[in-house]
Amino acid sequence: MDPGAPTRPAGIDPGAPTRPAGFDPAVLAREAVAGGNPVIPLVGALKAAVPEDGRRWVHRGATSQDVLDSALMVVAARAAGLVLDDLRAVEGALARLAAAHRDTVGAARTLTQHAVPMTMGLRIANRLRGLRRAAARLEDARFALPAQLAGAGGTLASFVELAGPEGAAELPAAFAAELGLAVPDAPWHTTRWPVTELGDALTGVLDALGAIGTDVATLSRTEIGELAEGAGGGSSAMPQKRNPAGSVLLRSAALRAPGLASTLHLAAALAGDERPDGAWHAEWPTLRELLRLALGAAANGRRLAEGLRVDDAAVARNLDATHGAILAERLSLVLGADTAREVLDDLTRRSRGAGGASRDGAGAPTRPTERDLAAVLEARGLDPALADPAGYTGLAGALVDDAVGTAASGILEPEPLEEP
Amino acid sequence: MDPGAPTRPAGIDPGAPTRPAGFDPAVLAREAVAGGNPVIPLVGALKAAVPEDGRRWVHRGATSQDVLDSALMVVAARAAGLVLDDLRAVEGALARLAAAHRDTVGAARTLTQHAVPMTMGLRIANRLRGLRRAAARLEDARFALPAQLAGAGGTLASFVELAGPEGAAELPAAFAAELGLAVPDAPWHTTRWPVTELGDALTGVLDALGAIGTDVATLSRTEIGELAEGAGGGSSAMPQKRNPAGSVLLRSAALRAPGLASTLHLAAALAGDERPDGAWHAEWPTLRELLRLALGAAANGRRLAEGLRVDDAAVARNLDATHGAILAERLSLVLGADTAREVLDDLTRRSRGAGGASRDGAGAPTRPTERDLAAVLEARGLDPALADPAGYTGLAGALVDDAVGTAASGILEPEPLEEP
Amino acid sequence: MDPGAPTRPAGIDPGAPTRPAGFDPAVLAREAVAGGNPVIPLVGALKAAVPEDGRRWVHRGATSQDVLDSALMVVAARAAGLVLDDLRAVEGALARLAAAHRDTVGAARTLTQHAVPMTMGLRIANRLRGLRRAAARLEDARFALPAQLAGAGGTLASFVELAGPEGAAELPAAFAAELGLAVPDAPWHTTRWPVTELGDALTGVLDALGAIGTDVATLSRTEIGELAEGAGGGSSAMPQKRNPAGSVLLRSAALRAPGLASTLHLAAALAGDERPDGAWHAEWPTLRELLRLALGAAANGRRLAEGLRVDDAAVARNLDATHGAILAERLSLVLGADTAREVLDDLTRRSRGAGGASRDGAGAPTRPTERDLAAVLEARGLDPALADPAGYTGLAGALVDDAVGTAASGILEPEPLEEP
Amino acid sequence: MDPGAPTRPAGIDPGAPTRPAGFDPAVLAREAVAGGNPVIPLVGALKAAVPEDGRRWVHRGATSQDVLDSALMVVAARAAGLVLDDLRAVEGALARLAAAHRDTVGAARTLTQHAVPMTMGLRIANRLRGLRRAAARLEDARFALPAQLAGAGGTLASFVELAGPEGAAELPAAFAAELGLAVPDAPWHTTRWPVTELGDALTGVLDALGAIGTDVATLSRTEIGELAEGAGGGSSAMPQKRNPAGSVLLRSAALRAPGLASTLHLAAALAGDERPDGAWHAEWPTLRELLRLALGAAANGRRLAEGLRVDDAAVARNLDATHGAILAERLSLVLGADTAREVLDDLTRRSRGAGGASRDGAGAPTRPTERDLAAVLEARGLDPALADPAGYTGLAGALVDDAVGTAASGILEPEPLEEP
Repeated sequence: MDPGAPTRPAGIDPGAPTRPAGFDPAVLAREAVAGGNPVIPLVGALKAAVPEDGRRWVHRGATSQDVLDSALMVVAARAAGLVLDDLRAVEGALARLAAAHRDTVGAARTLTQHAVPMTMGLRIANRLRGLRRAAARLEDARFALPAQLAGAGGTLASFVELAGPEGAAELPAAFAAELGLAVPDAPWHTTRWPVTELGDALTGVLDALGAIGTDVATLSRTEIGELAEGAGGGSSAMPQKRNPAGSVLLRSAALRAPGLASTLHLAAALAGDERPDGAWHAEWPTLRELLRLALGAAANGRRLAEGLRVDDAAVARNLDATHGAILAERLSLVLGADTAREVLDDLTRRSRGAGGASRDGAGAPTRPTERDLAAVLEARGLDPALADPAGYTGLAGALVDDAVGTAASGILEPEPLEEP
Repeated sequence: MDPGAPTRPAGIDPGAPTRPAGFDPAVLAREAVAGGNPVIPLVGALKAAVPEDGRRWVHRGATSQDVLDSALMVVAARAAGLVLDDLRAVEGALARLAAAHRDTVGAARTLTQHAVPMTMGLRIANRLRGLRRAAARLEDARFALPAQLAGAGGTLASFVELAGPEGAAELPAAFAAELGLAVPDAPWHTTRWPVTELGDALTGVLDALGAIGTDVATLSRTEIGELAEGAGGGSSAMPQKRNPAGSVLLRSAALRAPGLASTLHLAAALAGDERPDGAWHAEWPTLRELLRLALGAAANGRRLAEGLRVDDAAVARNLDATHGAILAERLSLVLGADTAREVLDDLTRRSRGAGGASRDGAGAPTRPTERDLAAVLEARGLDPALADPAGYTGLAGALVDDAVGTAASGILEPEPLEEP
Repeated sequence: MDPGAPTRPAGIDPGAPTRPAGFDPAVLAREAVAGGNPVIPLVGALKAAVPEDGRRWVHRGATSQDVLDSALMVVAARAAGLVLDDLRAVEGALARLAAAHRDTVGAARTLTQHAVPMTMGLRIANRLRGLRRAAARLEDARFALPAQLAGAGGTLASFVELAGPEGAAELPAAFAAELGLAVPDAPWHTTRWPVTELGDALTGVLDALGAIGTDVATLSRTEIGELAEGAGGGSSAMPQKRNPAGSVLLRSAALRAPGLASTLHLAAALAGDERPDGAWHAEWPTLRELLRLALGAAANGRRLAEGLRVDDAAVARNLDATHGAILAERLSLVLGADTAREVLDDLTRRSRGAGGASRDGAGAPTRPTERDLAAVLEARGLDPALADPAGYTGLAGALVDDAVGTAASGILEPEPLEEP
Repeated sequence: MDPGAPTRPAGIDPGAPTRPAGFDPAVLAREAVAGGNPVIPLVGALKAAVPEDGRRWVHRGATSQDVLDSALMVVAARAAGLVLDDLRAVEGALARLAAAHRDTVGAARTLTQHAVPMTMGLRIANRLRGLRRAAARLEDARFALPAQLAGAGGTLASFVELAGPEGAAELPAAFAAELGLAVPDAPWHTTRWPVTELGDALTGVLDALGAIGTDVATLSRTEIGELAEGAGGGSSAMPQKRNPAGSVLLRSAALRAPGLASTLHLAAALAGDERPDGAWHAEWPTLRELLRLALGAAANGRRLAEGLRVDDAAVARNLDATHGAILAERLSLVLGADTAREVLDDLTRRSRGAGGASRDGAGAPTRPTERDLAAVLEARGLDPALADPAGYTGLAGALVDDAVGTAASGILEPEPLEEP
């Protein structure tokens, strides 16, 4: 997508008033119960609001579902546009942060344990890629959101009666243009991919933001302290706390979204007859809640990403936590498994000695570092440079460059994938 | 997509043996518990199976996740290919059925009630469109399934150690080609869109098949009888039953899929660190179960669609159930609300009389038909042709032609949608 | 439970004002984002609202979670009480309806097909039992809802500092009494069964109401017409429709609840540390939405149950739809499989003849009835009484009596279950 | 429940063979597709396996659902019994561990940040309470699992035909006794609380185990190291890792369970007619998978709990991480907010100085401890005892005693809750 191009279909203006004067949502809601949907009282209110000679044209030929489905799509397109605006800001902030910490070497953790070195830049670049993919999918889903206009049975029979077959065939496109929605390829009263695809895309965005929240929450822990959110999260009673409040909200939203998305799929599978007996009604509040979650999470994600700070000293300190053993895989590859094991045994003895001594000593525990490993290697006549974690970060830098757009081409994709 | 083109990436042969001689899955499973994944015992078994000089190259530089993620993608691509084969057969059968019943006029039902006329062909064509969309999305997801090869921290550091930066950068593409998978744009150890997008696509397919099952189950009911599955569903004790067994299985699968897909999204959101502490493990059985559901449902859907029969007499009989009142909307549009109401009142009186008489009479209830409505209209000097349901099916025929491919262009889309 | 006993814990008055003057929820909500919960701004507002010498006692020693968890429980207890009130009305209406239709013989349907005879009373009595069980579980869950008061670490250390160990130990019970909640057996900051058990109970209620909606929607179908809701569901454009609007809303709520309940369980499983990083926050809107769903569904269920009407003629007409073949199982049991098959073959021939003749005849199709089966049996010298569906309803009447409370003891439980 | 009493209903012997000779599950499964359930081929196989004169009594009067529902309950009761056995072992191990670490003072963490002191014993005791509650609920659900025997329409009409009304009324109890299941109060073909209540209880167990896994995984992190699983989780390439493999599997199971439980609730809500068109079929694999998850998690939980080790030194070291600021709440309560702030400011200056000095020094960073806070307090003429975290653990010890059963009565419940 050309980032300079307008991304909002004509006709959808997020700044437009959403509650026209003279309609009381509470009254409409109350009157919606008897018939099972709010269009019936809304049509009454609309008729009362137009001059008498126009009254017969209000809702003429349309069915409640035409109105509600189209309205839901308008709201969804508007909300998705706002979400995408914030996601682009998140992407920008993450790209800057990844570039700035391209070579900040720290610990990669698998199953909670230090595994091998990696860079903070790569971690952030991975999250950037995930978010970008999710945003692209939301954008696709958003541009596909169709208008609905086909009458009670999905045949457009009422419109044919009013405007003839050719007139009726042109109506959905005209209506879609008016609403800034895509032209439906056919009525979708019981073919609910517009709802499920949007729901999946929103959930994908919430997944990607949730994963960011998961990383930030973990790396903000008191004992880790590699990341800190820029604002919020204070506690007057406990000023030592730096609550990752944004991450918490992102994770909360991500925990809620999948259950909502599952309801949309169920509704699609149960969309029987020409309008189902409950499945359709389950979509409205569910999709609305997903949109609200995405709006909130995108805004919180933006605040989080724009304020996120890396504590380089903490990253370096944690990298040393295993006294160099984080390089075990490298030692094994370079020196062979047997020699590597001997080196690590030396290291364990030395670390224990250091740690033990320090704690029995003058109250100042010595903090062993990768210098321990260098010393062990040297003592065995091996290359102490193997102890440098920065020497074992593989393609991390190139992967960051690729993700943030400073690389000429994809690092792992020198040639395009040949699809059959 | 060109339907004549090969749709299976090279290297994936669904006929290939899936359980190599000499490996006992039960033993591997048992030994997988201690380390939390089956790759650890598998590597042991593989090393034992290769000559001693090759042993050190087994799994060298790779991490368990590389193996499991890639294996999951291979299985998924293979299963999705089989699903797509069956879906194409379902599409073919539905297209034929829709064309054959293009003009079979019956009742459109909304909220369980007869609403207006429509055609059986349009109902089937709508399901065809839904399934086609879902299949296209599954096909997209399948071709995007990437290989995984990046080592414990996702940096490819081990491969750089073994093969240098350039060699390492080429490895993922070579590995992907070998497996018939897409080349990853980056390691996706904790960026799980390949899993969630596939899960969403499979769920979309199960939605579309479930909606078919929902319609067939309803229209097979004893009192409705418009559709019948071609085979199965018998009961020796109750030979009068014609159980829609295929529909029941489609619905069962569709009810189960959304909960599974939701687990995949959760796993994606909780994919923290460089390999998460539980979320990754939740993906394997969940995606496998979704694939099994889709394989079963696609096969059942094919059997159902290829055997599905329309009982034209039942469709016509049900269309008469309201004695012509199913045309109320048309009457209101053509005659105005007031005249329409008078006509319907006449009709109600006449229908009651007919029904009442027959039940008090000689045991042979008369079945009022739309001829009642024609008579009422004639008695009032109005056009009795308004009583013909076939005259109020709007664009149903054209929508069927469009869906089954016999129309020159999309009926509702004379011009392509201009996207910004 | 003694139905005459008060069911609302002291201190919970559903009529009490819920929005104290001087607090603006919108402002509190906005200010809640930074810290991730609304208690922080609420405490500020409360402090501003009390005289200066009382200010230091506002929220003293408590943590945000104490306030939010207790508030959630108060709201839940209040809402659950209202739900239970409506459920009791539903139970009463169903019991009356089951008793009134104790012997209304109709078709039992399995997998959409007529299977054997049963009674409308038994169908309703089964739904009554299901609802009663769900209501009892909700009542249990409601009385177990505990207050929360334990300070930031769940140790009550702050209260011990203020009031000594004995004073602190008495505080939770006093606080619970004030709020009309159960006394917690221990702090439950990260032991979330109060939330999940309530969520499960609410979902169970929505299941039971949804199953009622499912039956009513099906049996209200135009072709079936055995049940009709008493009000609502009209359509001005299509006056022939009798939309089962209440059923549709019950089903919609039931489709949404399970996804919400699943989020509560996830939150419980992820409730790590002494206050989790997202899981806790996911509970509030989710439980609130479940409560809203239950409140709405219980009210709709009450309206539905109190207005539900059985069309005895339609029940009888549908029972005849298979011309007596619905008694096939009985014939097989009584006459043996071979004779039964011959009788059914006779019946099929006769029914076809009757149906065919009537449609070719004078426009008045004869409706074959179980009298066909009686005639076939008589022609073979077999007992024509076997054709009476009322003779094959087993224990239906007794099961109804048992459910509605007119039986002396449980029909299937002459002796209590001996548990080990 | 008397813990000495037998907990397994008579007739359920988990050691009994589960696959009788002569039946091939694969063949039965294949033949199950046509009819939609495996009972039809099973009855055929059973008839072939009994002498000719007994054949007519095989399955006589029963419906497939009687067989499948009862079989599912037998399997569930057996599996739940095994789960409960393991849960009791987990409870025992947690109780011992909580008692052993009753006074191990460490950091309470809220939103990932150190908040106030607590004890490791209380943390474990809280998990013990949660698990005990979940186990009790599973035990209740298990004893309520009913047999099913009512024939196709749930009326027992076939059994009345065979044995008369009184004989039929006694059958369900006799059948239940034979199977070791509860006597049903009525047929539950479409009243599915036995399935949902069991599903909820199993999910509750998985929640409680998942929360244990969540805590252990977090506290096992390389930087925290307060807990370690006793076995497993090694990595040959990365020997420094101590993967919390058991926790990972507990979390994985807990992430999967809620989606499965949600499917059971949906099936209950959609259980229409006298046997539904898909909802029933969705229950079997879903409940089976939940049982498998619970069996696996209970066994893994037992291994984890029995091997879990607390590293007291790490707990103490982490408690010092904020140099005493973890006591901020206490300072504020005792000294007032203003003095507390001044003390904390002193502490911050001192900590920075200490940390900075140590890092610039001879490679041996000094580790500031709560002694810093004591010094600051002393310097201001305040009581240095306020700096002792063990002095601010409130009722933690008593809560542990209460949970592990060494207290005479509930600490927070001196008097029973008076329920209305």
